[in-house]
Amino acid sequence: MAKQARAAVTRQQIVRAAAAMFDERGFHGASFADILRDTGLSKGAVYFHFASKIDLAGAIVAEQHRRSIALVDAIAGTEASTLEQIVMLCHGIGRQMIEDPVVRAGIRLTLELGSLDKPAGPYLDWITACEAFGRRAVEEGDLDAHLDPSMLAHFVISAFTGVQLLSDVLAGRVDLEERIDQMWTLLLPGIMPTSRHDAIETVRGARWSLPLGGDLLPVSAT
Amino acid sequence: MAKQARAAVTRQQIVRAAAAMFDERGFHGASFADILRDTGLSKGAVYFHFASKIDLAGAIVAEQHRRSIALVDAIAGTEASTLEQIVMLCHGIGRQMIEDPVVRAGIRLTLELGSLDKPAGPYLDWITACEAFGRRAVEEGDLDAHLDPSMLAHFVISAFTGVQLLSDVLAGRVDLEERIDQMWTLLLPGIMPTSRHDAIETVRGARWSLPLGGDLLPVSAT
Repeated sequence: MAKQARAAVTRQQIVRAAAAMFDERGFHGASFADILRDTGLSKGAVYFHFASKIDLAGAIVAEQHRRSIALVDAIAGTEASTLEQIVMLCHGIGRQMIEDPVVRAGIRLTLELGSLDKPAGPYLDWITACEAFGRRAVEEGDLDAHLDPSMLAHFVISAFTGVQLLSDVLAGRVDLEERIDQMWTLLLPGIMPTSRHDAIETVRGARWSLPLGGDLLPVSAT
Repeated sequence: MAKQARAAVTRQQIVRAAAAMFDERGFHGASFADILRDTGLSKGAVYFHFASKIDLAGAIVAEQHRRSIALVDAIAGTEASTLEQIVMLCHGIGRQMIEDPVVRAGIRLTLELGSLDKPAGPYLDWITACEAFGRRAVEEGDLDAHLDPSMLAHFVISAFTGVQLLSDVLAGRVDLEERIDQMWTLLLPGIMPTSRHDAIETVRGARWSLPLGGDLLPVSAT
């Protein structure tokens, strides 16, 4: 195996161990020494990739973001209408949260470090992406013509953030899909033009059914 | 001054200093020693009321909750329709977050300790209160008869949590009132029966304009 490929595999091994730890204990509860032990690697091998706990946290947030963007791209490439794609994306991200420890850890870290350092980046990226989808959905006539896509995007990302947070705190995310579905049940009648209301059930039911990627995607080497 | 009254004043002084510190630095960034110093009180006076940082955090979350409940009661006592009261309540809590450091600190602590220990209490209390309001609003004909008040309450509290979180992270809460207004702009057309749509602007514009209480309310003595 080439040196670079070996390094990428090692890095992935560390990211997996760190994600499991951060997902379970959060940033303040996790220790670098425990993560090091869980990797089963030598100190030197780990330090070659990451110098500290905050380095690891940064790498996991970046990796979570990369997996989310990969899902955005995959869903944007489907034949579904753009409004259906927005619904699919919420459920897809929800499934990633349930199935992928790297995504779960990344979100927990964003929230925990976010309340300390308030990094706006991930939220702004999501709002920008959602706004572009919203603009297309207006053009396709599935959203009210007078609706401001920027306002809608801001609210959808805010509401989704809260929905996943409460589902996590109140139900360990077992009801996440149901709660996302309820969000769209309440929102769609108010944002779709009356002339398209016969499509509400189809839009609400839109799902991404293919594998999510997750560990199937190569972890990018630094 | 009676001994009990003096103790209550001291306690309030400590809660204020601790709230300012937690609001600024969060739970992990705040130190008990620094809070002690900021109170300007003796070590003994502080320890008489609070033995640790986590004790202080608990008292602040409880006090924030008490102030929120006082607002719920005050708004429930107005002549406004129940749906207007729900909108007033969101804006009232938003104003408390902006104006009252104890409320801000309480919410930050709930979020930070929440991601560690996941205390469901505050969220469940809000959902229960909102569900009762929602049930009355259905009876008053302002919400669609087929709407499930429990589902609505769960979503409103989730969405509000996300809206205030993103407004904090992205804008230091300066746009909070506007973002809450946008939430209702998007939600009301889908949850109010078409026959009541001429009242949408009135409902959206409902505000609680009286003082919020905050430090006017006596801090409960332990």
